[in-house]
Amino acid sequence: MAWDNLMYKMGFKTTKNVVYNKCSEDIENERKKSTFDPLELTHLLDGGPEKTLERREREKLFLSDPELMDDVPAEYLSHKEKYELSIKKACKLFKKVSQLRDQGGGDMEMFKQMLSGMLGSAILKDGNPFALHYVMFVPTIMGQGTLEQQALWMGRAWNCEIIGTYAQTELGHGTFIRGLETTAHYDPKTKEFIINSPTLTSYKWWPGGLGHTANYAIVVAQLYTTGACRGIHPFIVQLRDEDTHKPMKGIKIGEIGTKLGMNATNNGYLGFDKVRIPRENMLMKNAQVLEDGTYVKSPSDKLTYGTMMFVRVVIVQDVASYLSKAVTIAVRYSAVRRQSELKPGEPEPQIMDYRTQQYKLFPNIASCLAMRFAAMWLWNLYNNITSELEEGDMERLPELHALACCLKSVCSADGAKAIETCRLACGGHGYMTCSNLPATYGLVTAACTYEGENTVLLLQTARFLMKAWHQATSGIKLTPTVAYLQSAVTSDTSRHWEHSLQGIVRAHQDVAAGKIKLAATNMERRIRGGISPEDAWNNTSIELTQCAEAHCRAILVNNFVQTLETFKVSDSLHLVLTQLCELYAVHWVLQKSGDFLRPHGTSRDDINNLQTWLETLLAQIRPNAVSIVDSFDICDEVLSSALGARDGRVYERLFEEAAKSPLNKEPVNKSFHKYLKPFLKSNL
Amino acid sequence: MAWDNLMYKMGFKTTKNVVYNKCSEDIENERKKSTFDPLELTHLLDGGPEKTLERREREKLFLSDPELMDDVPAEYLSHKEKYELSIKKACKLFKKVSQLRDQGGGDMEMFKQMLSGMLGSAILKDGNPFALHYVMFVPTIMGQGTLEQQALWMGRAWNCEIIGTYAQTELGHGTFIRGLETTAHYDPKTKEFIINSPTLTSYKWWPGGLGHTANYAIVVAQLYTTGACRGIHPFIVQLRDEDTHKPMKGIKIGEIGTKLGMNATNNGYLGFDKVRIPRENMLMKNAQVLEDGTYVKSPSDKLTYGTMMFVRVVIVQDVASYLSKAVTIAVRYSAVRRQSELKPGEPEPQIMDYRTQQYKLFPNIASCLAMRFAAMWLWNLYNNITSELEEGDMERLPELHALACCLKSVCSADGAKAIETCRLACGGHGYMTCSNLPATYGLVTAACTYEGENTVLLLQTARFLMKAWHQATSGIKLTPTVAYLQSAVTSDTSRHWEHSLQGIVRAHQDVAAGKIKLAATNMERRIRGGISPEDAWNNTSIELTQCAEAHCRAILVNNFVQTLETFKVSDSLHLVLTQLCELYAVHWVLQKSGDFLRPHGTSRDDINNLQTWLETLLAQIRPNAVSIVDSFDICDEVLSSALGARDGRVYERLFEEAAKSPLNKEPVNKSFHKYLKPFLKSNL
Repeated sequence: MAWDNLMYKMGFKTTKNVVYNKCSEDIENERKKSTFDPLELTHLLDGGPEKTLERREREKLFLSDPELMDDVPAEYLSHKEKYELSIKKACKLFKKVSQLRDQGGGDMEMFKQMLSGMLGSAILKDGNPFALHYVMFVPTIMGQGTLEQQALWMGRAWNCEIIGTYAQTELGHGTFIRGLETTAHYDPKTKEFIINSPTLTSYKWWPGGLGHTANYAIVVAQLYTTGACRGIHPFIVQLRDEDTHKPMKGIKIGEIGTKLGMNATNNGYLGFDKVRIPRENMLMKNAQVLEDGTYVKSPSDKLTYGTMMFVRVVIVQDVASYLSKAVTIAVRYSAVRRQSELKPGEPEPQIMDYRTQQYKLFPNIASCLAMRFAAMWLWNLYNNITSELEEGDMERLPELHALACCLKSVCSADGAKAIETCRLACGGHGYMTCSNLPATYGLVTAACTYEGENTVLLLQTARFLMKAWHQATSGIKLTPTVAYLQSAVTSDTSRHWEHSLQGIVRAHQDVAAGKIKLAATNMERRIRGGISPEDAWNNTSIELTQCAEAHCRAILVNNFVQTLETFKVSDSLHLVLTQLCELYAVHWVLQKSGDFLRPHGTSRDDINNLQTWLETLLAQIRPNAVSIVDSFDICDEVLSSALGARDGRVYERLFEEAAKSPLNKEPVNKSFHKYLKPFLKSNL
Repeated sequence: MAWDNLMYKMGFKTTKNVVYNKCSEDIENERKKSTFDPLELTHLLDGGPEKTLERREREKLFLSDPELMDDVPAEYLSHKEKYELSIKKACKLFKKVSQLRDQGGGDMEMFKQMLSGMLGSAILKDGNPFALHYVMFVPTIMGQGTLEQQALWMGRAWNCEIIGTYAQTELGHGTFIRGLETTAHYDPKTKEFIINSPTLTSYKWWPGGLGHTANYAIVVAQLYTTGACRGIHPFIVQLRDEDTHKPMKGIKIGEIGTKLGMNATNNGYLGFDKVRIPRENMLMKNAQVLEDGTYVKSPSDKLTYGTMMFVRVVIVQDVASYLSKAVTIAVRYSAVRRQSELKPGEPEPQIMDYRTQQYKLFPNIASCLAMRFAAMWLWNLYNNITSELEEGDMERLPELHALACCLKSVCSADGAKAIETCRLACGGHGYMTCSNLPATYGLVTAACTYEGENTVLLLQTARFLMKAWHQATSGIKLTPTVAYLQSAVTSDTSRHWEHSLQGIVRAHQDVAAGKIKLAATNMERRIRGGISPEDAWNNTSIELTQCAEAHCRAILVNNFVQTLETFKVSDSLHLVLTQLCELYAVHWVLQKSGDFLRPHGTSRDDINNLQTWLETLLAQIRPNAVSIVDSFDICDEVLSSALGARDGRVYERLFEEAAKSPLNKEPVNKSFHKYLKPFLKSNL
């Protein structure tokens, strides 16, 4: 809607609008203040100028397509209409993606972008009903199917002749997959598996696209053959007729209902009433069931780790993306919003000039980078270790697993909190759907429980750390990411506090080592006191989660510092990045000051000095804040926020968004005549 | 839906369901373990057995009324349908309330319940479009109208012949009300005010019920008369024709669009194009404009504080209610949910047996009581001080103001975080709308920004604390809630740590005093360094908010302890309440351990001992957890949660809720034929 037209509708006789100009000026002035070139940082984050260009072109190609735009924002639709809209758009989107691929214009990078928290979430804002087809169904067939099975299924799946999902989680069991109850009994007479849901809690529950979209699924079930349970295995099951989409015989299926967010993912439930599938439908690259029912074990039960770790790496990347969006929105809004007074008689300051506002925003700018660099590092480690794995070397697998667990857990939890901090920093307006902050939170907080519940994952990392500690005390050499434990064995962990970035990195490691040592001591004390090792573990588990968190924070800070050292950038950019790195490091010491105080060598004065350092950094970062978030280069369509657009026209956009509400299309809603008027006239 | 019928639909041939019995048994066993009588606690919390009875009867009366129930849960409807449903139900609800009142069966307590986070939110789950009529429109006329004005308006408002809202907040200004831009120019020729919106940012934005519901509003505007601006004043403005509901001439009105939550409150925007209203429509109990335009000042500018403080007191109560709901849901779910294994070969434990789960839940049980007792105490203080006020005594007003500010701020922020902790403690299922945890969060997090943004409120408390500190150093006697500062002036704040509840209370006060003293010192240092007092304030503001928070935590802990001492209860209940009080106190020391370590007399060993105390308390509270939340006595209709119902039939209810989705009424959605089939058959 043209602004003139809107202003007219809103009742202004003139389009002269003081606010309009003032807002734009504020944000333009911010850009003039920048001490570095934002484009240099954009290129650095993308991996080079050509990558930036490529990304921008792809964004333009998809985001200018009118077929992928909404007439009425989805949040005004009914749940059913939201689903129908998402199917319409997902079909158009992936048709376009396939066409580009066939024309040689698209690659895996394009698929990644379409399923990511950036471009993908700009088009399918509240989840993608096809996501699991690409992220889980196809990769599982590739990773766990035999060559014959791949030949049979991959072509059809890849060309979207069938659409699949991945049905693992059940109503009664999530992270603890050994507890899954769905059964697959092998019948050697017919050479079929009988898939069954023996209890209500065995119903599959949660898989995306399962409700009304997918016609096939990988189903994870307890395999029974030759009279014994062989543990969980993956099976391909047809769910719906390919022509009529009606559920197949014995398939009980539907969606699970509305959720906090992701209401377009069509999460579903699925029950089996003794559904028979051919023997060939068990994915048999690793374990096998022969025709006569003989079970052939997988050479290693760690071979299925891969996909799980891959997804956790992706989560860390996505959380960094979503947080970048939230921070961009909140920082730009804070440059435009003027409120209250600092000094009597002076104009209302930009709220970003309040120290408390800087404290809410700037550490989260730094977190975007910390998480992004951690994701990059973890991605490389994942690739290195999986190629070692293909050569049969599994030595570093536990370390990778421990890292993926704690980074997924800490980044999703930190990210969710940070996004809420950004939303609340926008005051009431952050509560509006059109700020896009509530949906962004909805997407990230979901990651705290899916793909491994965060506390369970922290305890898995803690188990690795306890082992590492015992290795350290036994003089066994430790893998690189826990090598810092070595020195904690011999010396106590209270080193002299050093007021520097390197000092803070070491202090983080000392804190982690101290916590790990203490938890190990408490475990031993409990066991010596006559408690079983399992109960001792449970009784110590609060501290154990804190060990894993402290370890993860040491990794995050250290990796930030290490990554900076590898960059060849201009002095002006280097200074900005160093300030952000320092802010991140200092912030977390202050957040966890109780851990850093004696016996970890830190005194109360050190903490007070850190507070001063923090305040200095906030002031230093202030003039560059808008330019830093500009350099994240998130286009308006991806941000999708009335508060965060590049031009800073916050108030106009809020009105433009309100004008889209169907309720506002009529001056008087019909409920007045039907209910309200009789009520008002009833002389109560 | 009958369970048999549902099970049949879901594909079970038999109704024998192991899970059903198992779940119920688990929660029944919990109740058998209780060491105290939950009803005794219910009576205590309600204020006596007769109050409990009264509340339950009222709940039954309203919650059994089929006209107040939904056919399809509102979350499946479009935004417009949600609005229409809320109007339908609000009209029926308040008609019923009025009828009861006329029959002598209802009192103010009934209105309070209808507008509260308990009964009210059970019927109008996502906000009440009439709320501001009762909470702000009527009270403002009563509080700020002259007797003539009350005579003119109160009857019509009270009988709902007109429906009003309170239009204060604008697009550009919220908490900082002096910055409001709407103008009211007095025209002595016609004896009218001309209400105008000079800028886009001057549009009213946010008031509940304003969009399409209210036909009148109290409008807060900058008064201009005899050539000068006289500051903000309240005016009654007719918004819509009483018969047609069409907007009056010059009134630009609509709703602001969808939000994170509260989507049935019909928040609106409102602009004025030189709207003329009679002089009599300015509420003139305090300030007045005479016929000739002469302005007569209010005897005190503090007289309008009342409503604002009242609302903040109510927020603390409501947060306590909402948190009680969330805790009840999460505790009951944790008794029913069994997951993973503690010991190989043993049955899966109830997740409440995991120490980490207890750590997520039990401190929040304690918080419910801490907030509830704080709300009770603040309510009494409010009543005492407002009756002093009516006698012209304003001495304790600043103290009340400071307390209302920090308690509203800390309780809403703690409450929101606690509810999210409860939600995440329910794993993925907590993400379902039918858990009622997402909506509960939506209602509470809104309170972090409305009725005074939390950071701004903390800084208002901090201003009071700085004054109190200077009084203390000048030897002036302090009001009771800050009397603890007196001793910090003479001695340093590092007292010997005492491992007891009383010791923790004093330690909290020492920490608060220490922070206040340090912030005052830093302020002075900055001013001595040549910075203006305003800039020094801003530069110290991070620490100042932390002073206010620490002060508030000292108040909360102290009040919990003091309140317990006034109760005459059985020994068994006293023990349970003491354990919860200790847990609350210990938990917050550990959360803020950095503050309690030296120089506040606490050593690292003390902290380790506190961790042990915490773990002991978690184990002690474990057997009573379900009974404690039972004693909150929140009926299933008010809880409105598939995870939290009294009978623990979690999994059945999840299915029952999914069955309500309109998408599940048809096996194949029309989008298959329209979009998905052509896509799958297109041979990409």
